Amino acid sequence: MIEVYSWPTPNGHKVHIMLEECGLAYRVHPVDIGAGDQFTPAFLAISPNNKIPAITDPDGPDGRPLSMFESGAILLYLAGKTGKLLPADVAAKYEVLQWLMFQMGGVGPMLGQAHHFRIYAREKLPYAIERYTNEAKRLYAVINKRLAHTTYLGGTDYSIADIAVFPWLRSWKNQGVEMSDYPHLRGWFDEIAKRPAVQRGLEVLAGARKPLTDDKAREVLFGRRQVEQR
Amino acid sequence: MIEVYSWPTPNGHKVHIMLEECGLAYRVHPVDIGAGDQFTPAFLAISPNNKIPAITDPDGPDGRPLSMFESGAILLYLAGKTGKLLPADVAAKYEVLQWLMFQMGGVGPMLGQAHHFRIYAREKLPYAIERYTNEAKRLYAVINKRLAHTTYLGGTDYSIADIAVFPWLRSWKNQGVEMSDYPHLRGWFDEIAKRPAVQRGLEVLAGARKPLTDDKAREVLFGRRQVEQR
Repeated sequence: MIEVYSWPTPNGHKVHIMLEECGLAYRVHPVDIGAGDQFTPAFLAISPNNKIPAITDPDGPDGRPLSMFESGAILLYLAGKTGKLLPADVAAKYEVLQWLMFQMGGVGPMLGQAHHFRIYAREKLPYAIERYTNEAKRLYAVINKRLAHTTYLGGTDYSIADIAVFPWLRSWKNQGVEMSDYPHLRGWFDEIAKRPAVQRGLEVLAGARKPLTDDKAREVLFGRRQVEQR
Repeated sequence: MIEVYSWPTPNGHKVHIMLEECGLAYRVHPVDIGAGDQFTPAFLAISPNNKIPAITDPDGPDGRPLSMFESGAILLYLAGKTGKLLPADVAAKYEVLQWLMFQMGGVGPMLGQAHHFRIYAREKLPYAIERYTNEAKRLYAVINKRLAHTTYLGGTDYSIADIAVFPWLRSWKNQGVEMSDYPHLRGWFDEIAKRPAVQRGLEVLAGARKPLTDDKAREVLFGRRQVEQR
């Protein structure tokens, strides 16, 4: 059985949804990032960047155990393991990979910064709030334009590119975005939200989440400990 | 011949170095991001996120032409095309992919924010400067710890994970980092810097770069145009 070390954040949801879409058996181990669980030696041994999610699979390549960190790499691994949600056709596969990388390099990090400066940061900095709100709107516009021409982000079929982007857009209000301004994106989002596997994935650890805006969580997530732990 | 639409930034350098390491024939088309070349319809047709680098390959999968954007996806594509710099062994391949994703989701975006708030932003915001300088130090520490145990980021062999990370660390001074504080990283960096293909890759468009801190470049890169163009 796949062991999943995770928390109900967008990057966690990516992997929870993927596991459900693939019909894989898994067991979830909560890593409370507001309490600092991500700095324990046991977790760092499988996730050296101290981020969730991470997985271990006792039945990895050639039947040997394997551990993985980085949500985008885990999506690729599970797609490779099951033959699902990443096209076998080479050109179609690279079309999906472009949009997966767009999520990894743009949607995730930049919407994460929007969340930070709009919601979590104690200081309200107008320059930073404007910077990341503008970037959020730009990213939504790129996605909307893409979905005016294709049914799914990666092309004609639902894929790991959709699974990677979808959880980040659930928090559009926190990003200063009005989702209905992007009708193609909105239609795609609503369709994905109806998928039973997506709904099951979003239920994983749903009861565990706590606000990340109290003083302790702020110190753990944004304080000096990030640097001094090593 | 592969056509490369690029500029001498870390993400551009990744692809220039990869093309040189693979010994592929290519032609470079400068996209002056300080002048706004990334917003032309011709460029957006191959790079819908209006970022460099992008490529077109007339000899893509099944001999059909293919265009690609997102540097991480381009590295994967060129590795697949040539069979170079990504292990064939499945477990070793996913080990490399983890560190490639670590670059795409962490090293690139976060060091990019460090550059922005430390160098490019007109307002000097202590909170944001501290946030991203701390994150830069944290990322260097993660890499240094990894390289205490492995010769290369992805494992025993030089790979696309190294090619993805290396160009971002050349600007360590702009990130508020002292590279010599990270001896394993420093040794790895110096060895990669000596590779002839890396040196050739860094020469691509080397004469074209201009400062991005004048008013016009600031407006193009960080102003409202990013949002209003669509």
